[in-house]
Amino acid sequence: MTLTQAILKGDRLALARLLSHVENDSPQGRAALIELYPHTGRAHMIGVTGAPGTGKSSLVNQLALHYRRTEGKRIAIVAVDPSSPFSGGAVLGDRVRMRDLSGDSGVFIRSMASRGSLGGLAQSTAGLAQVFDAAGFDKILIETVGAGQGEVEVARLAHTTLVVEAPGLGDDIQAIKAGILEIADILVVNKADRPGVENTEKALRSMLELAHPVQRTFMHHGLAMSVSSPKEDTLENMWTPPILRTVALDGQGIPELAGWIARHETHLRQSGDWMVRERARLEVELETLVREELMGRFREEIPDNRYEEILERVVQKNLSPWEAVRILMNGRLN
Amino acid sequence: MTLTQAILKGDRLALARLLSHVENDSPQGRAALIELYPHTGRAHMIGVTGAPGTGKSSLVNQLALHYRRTEGKRIAIVAVDPSSPFSGGAVLGDRVRMRDLSGDSGVFIRSMASRGSLGGLAQSTAGLAQVFDAAGFDKILIETVGAGQGEVEVARLAHTTLVVEAPGLGDDIQAIKAGILEIADILVVNKADRPGVENTEKALRSMLELAHPVQRTFMHHGLAMSVSSPKEDTLENMWTPPILRTVALDGQGIPELAGWIARHETHLRQSGDWMVRERARLEVELETLVREELMGRFREEIPDNRYEEILERVVQKNLSPWEAVRILMNGRLN
Repeated sequence: MTLTQAILKGDRLALARLLSHVENDSPQGRAALIELYPHTGRAHMIGVTGAPGTGKSSLVNQLALHYRRTEGKRIAIVAVDPSSPFSGGAVLGDRVRMRDLSGDSGVFIRSMASRGSLGGLAQSTAGLAQVFDAAGFDKILIETVGAGQGEVEVARLAHTTLVVEAPGLGDDIQAIKAGILEIADILVVNKADRPGVENTEKALRSMLELAHPVQRTFMHHGLAMSVSSPKEDTLENMWTPPILRTVALDGQGIPELAGWIARHETHLRQSGDWMVRERARLEVELETLVREELMGRFREEIPDNRYEEILERVVQKNLSPWEAVRILMNGRLN
Repeated sequence: MTLTQAILKGDRLALARLLSHVENDSPQGRAALIELYPHTGRAHMIGVTGAPGTGKSSLVNQLALHYRRTEGKRIAIVAVDPSSPFSGGAVLGDRVRMRDLSGDSGVFIRSMASRGSLGGLAQSTAGLAQVFDAAGFDKILIETVGAGQGEVEVARLAHTTLVVEAPGLGDDIQAIKAGILEIADILVVNKADRPGVENTEKALRSMLELAHPVQRTFMHHGLAMSVSSPKEDTLENMWTPPILRTVALDGQGIPELAGWIARHETHLRQSGDWMVRERARLEVELETLVREELMGRFREEIPDNRYEEILERVVQKNLSPWEAVRILMNGRLN
């Protein structure tokens, strides 16, 4: 039995092995992704993003528990956050609660080291998510730290994006996060038992009014792409991100959150936006792979010392970068 | 007289015209950049980044005034920040103070719309900076809003990067900004007459201790590159970012800040780091141009409808993205 066959049959050990292959972008991992690809496209990908201190790891935890206990869904968690308890930086409380999930064969938790480039990280995350999707997991929770470009990449991957806030994290500074708000399908004010929860909600509400929910812009590798479903232009089909309160530590608000996630999935499918997002995501993925392939071939066609020599002339101001490109392109043909 | 000749002679109108060409990436702009390239490499590029509300535009303003009045230097300001008074979002105070700069032929202010992709923006900014450099401006101040990937791109362009903070912007949330701290050569706590300045300084100091000043990582287009000067490995050659207090509104701390910027320039030149940074910057610029050129040629070689057809098969799960790339690459040769 091949690795992919084992995975399609539900073999967890095979799954763990393949995830490592995919994370390391090994030839075996690549081959398996190709084999598994026709089996993908069923899972609901849920991105969870927010600054450190918002308690988003506990929230992911509680959501997973909820899906297990009340819906019997199979849940995968991909933690792309160096501060996540799933990837090592746990506080005791989280570790204890994780026991509720460990030993449950319907849950698979995978943490990724947030090393290397953002683009590479997004690609690895996409690969892991595809493996989980093919392996039959129903919900894939992708947790990322809120730090700019990173969560925009995740929003591109996820069908539903949760942006997590918490009271007392400095409302002033929120202005920076307008870009993050634009990717939010659901806003969660976690730690809602803390003082200042009304202020946080108020700040989010006024920022929401500034954002434009109709049109979303996906940015990737210097390419900005506007994706808007024509159906969304009618008012009844527009999705207005709700602002929800949760206290992940004791599970308050989790069923309501799960309800809104389900509502968003229904909205996506009924409005046609599900396919619009799938298409946009795959378009970017294809372009990224084309770029990588072209660059890889280029590197093979130009000897390293030739490239270094040209670069040196640019550094010495004897050659402009644009002329250098022209020379390199011509040199490639000879 | 050609446009570039006029610019080298100090013609401000020609300069303004070329800046527009470069910003729009027109063929004329490209040609001029090639002609001007041998004249670049003299200016000191200073990046100024920070969240909205830190008062970095006033700081840039005051720095420019200082350089004009005490050193007679020619100063260019490139504002890549939608909230900057230079690009339209001015508060009255700033507008009034800008009068001190307007009408001074030794100062040129250029604002850029922060539209389009991050990669494209970085490339345009680099182009504008090169024009100013060739036109004989001594200091080029590049102001960007602190929002993640953006200022890392600026750090790549700048020789000296100032990260501006202000008291009361939420010390909790600062943990996100560890990545921004790593690019800081000088930390400025502006609005230092406000309460909480000690806390901000303390938070910055403890975060500085976590960061590793010896090694810097430049990230660009999914490519992470470690750049460290061997000379920097000895303790006496290491640069420890100072934390300075300023009140830009009344000019407090500006001469000291200018002094530290000068000290950093000396450090860069004596340690050999100036050339290390120049080389790293040009290496990334060359690679970016190569990638764009390869992608442009690829687009010409593949008919649009052929690309759409392949993408559609990927969307329908009949073809994996990796197989699609293989087919596209082969189709290109026929």
